[in-house]
Amino acid sequence: MKIYDITVAISADVPIYKGDPGVEVTSFKSIADGSSANVSHVSLGVHTATHIDAPNHFIDGAKRIHEIDPEKLVGPCRVIEVPEDVVAIEPEHVGNLGGLIRVLFKTRNSAFWATPEDGFRTDFTYLTPATAKLLVDSGVVLVGIDYLSIEKSGSPGHPVHITLLEKEVVILEGVDLREVKGGDYGLICMPLKYIGGGGDGSPARTMLWHNE
Amino acid sequence: MKIYDITVAISADVPIYKGDPGVEVTSFKSIADGSSANVSHVSLGVHTATHIDAPNHFIDGAKRIHEIDPEKLVGPCRVIEVPEDVVAIEPEHVGNLGGLIRVLFKTRNSAFWATPEDGFRTDFTYLTPATAKLLVDSGVVLVGIDYLSIEKSGSPGHPVHITLLEKEVVILEGVDLREVKGGDYGLICMPLKYIGGGGDGSPARTMLWHNE
Repeated sequence: MKIYDITVAISADVPIYKGDPGVEVTSFKSIADGSSANVSHVSLGVHTATHIDAPNHFIDGAKRIHEIDPEKLVGPCRVIEVPEDVVAIEPEHVGNLGGLIRVLFKTRNSAFWATPEDGFRTDFTYLTPATAKLLVDSGVVLVGIDYLSIEKSGSPGHPVHITLLEKEVVILEGVDLREVKGGDYGLICMPLKYIGGGGDGSPARTMLWHNE
Repeated sequence: MKIYDITVAISADVPIYKGDPGVEVTSFKSIADGSSANVSHVSLGVHTATHIDAPNHFIDGAKRIHEIDPEKLVGPCRVIEVPEDVVAIEPEHVGNLGGLIRVLFKTRNSAFWATPEDGFRTDFTYLTPATAKLLVDSGVVLVGIDYLSIEKSGSPGHPVHITLLEKEVVILEGVDLREVKGGDYGLICMPLKYIGGGGDGSPARTMLWHNE
């Protein structure tokens, strides 16, 4: 079994979605300072780096992160590679899913992870509302993309998020697919389980595997 | 496939290992306050709730959380249920692992999760140094227990942690095995991937599965 870790690391340098809180990772105790152990502290917005959106991100009163069915987060998954020149992912890019219910899109966005010093970019490739509708109608339970939003920057009313979240489709944002080719894999996507705040999302360690 | 989520939720109420930082989960933006989305913020020590220890927790300069081989974190796993009256898990409790390299111990500790109002307890069931040595010698790559430390409270020199971590065995602490019987499962244990601080551990969403 070959495992691909497609998670972008949380760090003080990772690009942050505009307006979201930054990341702080600090040493709370350290052996160098005379403690018996190193103990770190992490402070971050829940939509940092590779993360998922829960329905309550855009739909007040909807399901929170700890209420997402784990069965959506593990299982067969297709990686659809769209051409480098595609900015808007349209229904024609999806093709026949053959019953697969988890889909990740590999786009030109993955290359953005190589230059974190650019900060947050708004020119990322995204899904159109028609594509979100197609995926919902196809019974998809998880859809992912390789940058920090799945929807065109500044879209009024956030129709792509709403279309997916009102059907409780898990939105996975910020995966790094540079090392992964289009094809079928197994997916493991594990958000934190926490209670409090809005429960609207979580960083999620995410891996793909296939048998070799 | 039946999935068991054995993760203890991170919350302001979860018992915290003595001396470690507490948990804060807050709303950074909320729809109720006029934002277009709910966005939460989380602040916590990395050894909160269900978590793993990286070698750099007790061995300065050793591997950090983002350097742990993902292959250790996913795969076949045995849950060994020890009798209710066992406080010290000895080599005799391990039995023949039959080549399995991931082991979780289900003990009387799991019942502690039902009463978080008790706060952090020091009377938890733990592994003895001889058991840690046996597991290392058996080629185990991950060992877990159902409370916040794998080692007797207050052990001078932390020999159980050191024995395991110097061989880069992943220590998984704080799983909730109340709903799980002893037996063989598949394990998924996904810590955050972060860079900074000591990299000494991380909360880890953890699940067991078996085919039904």
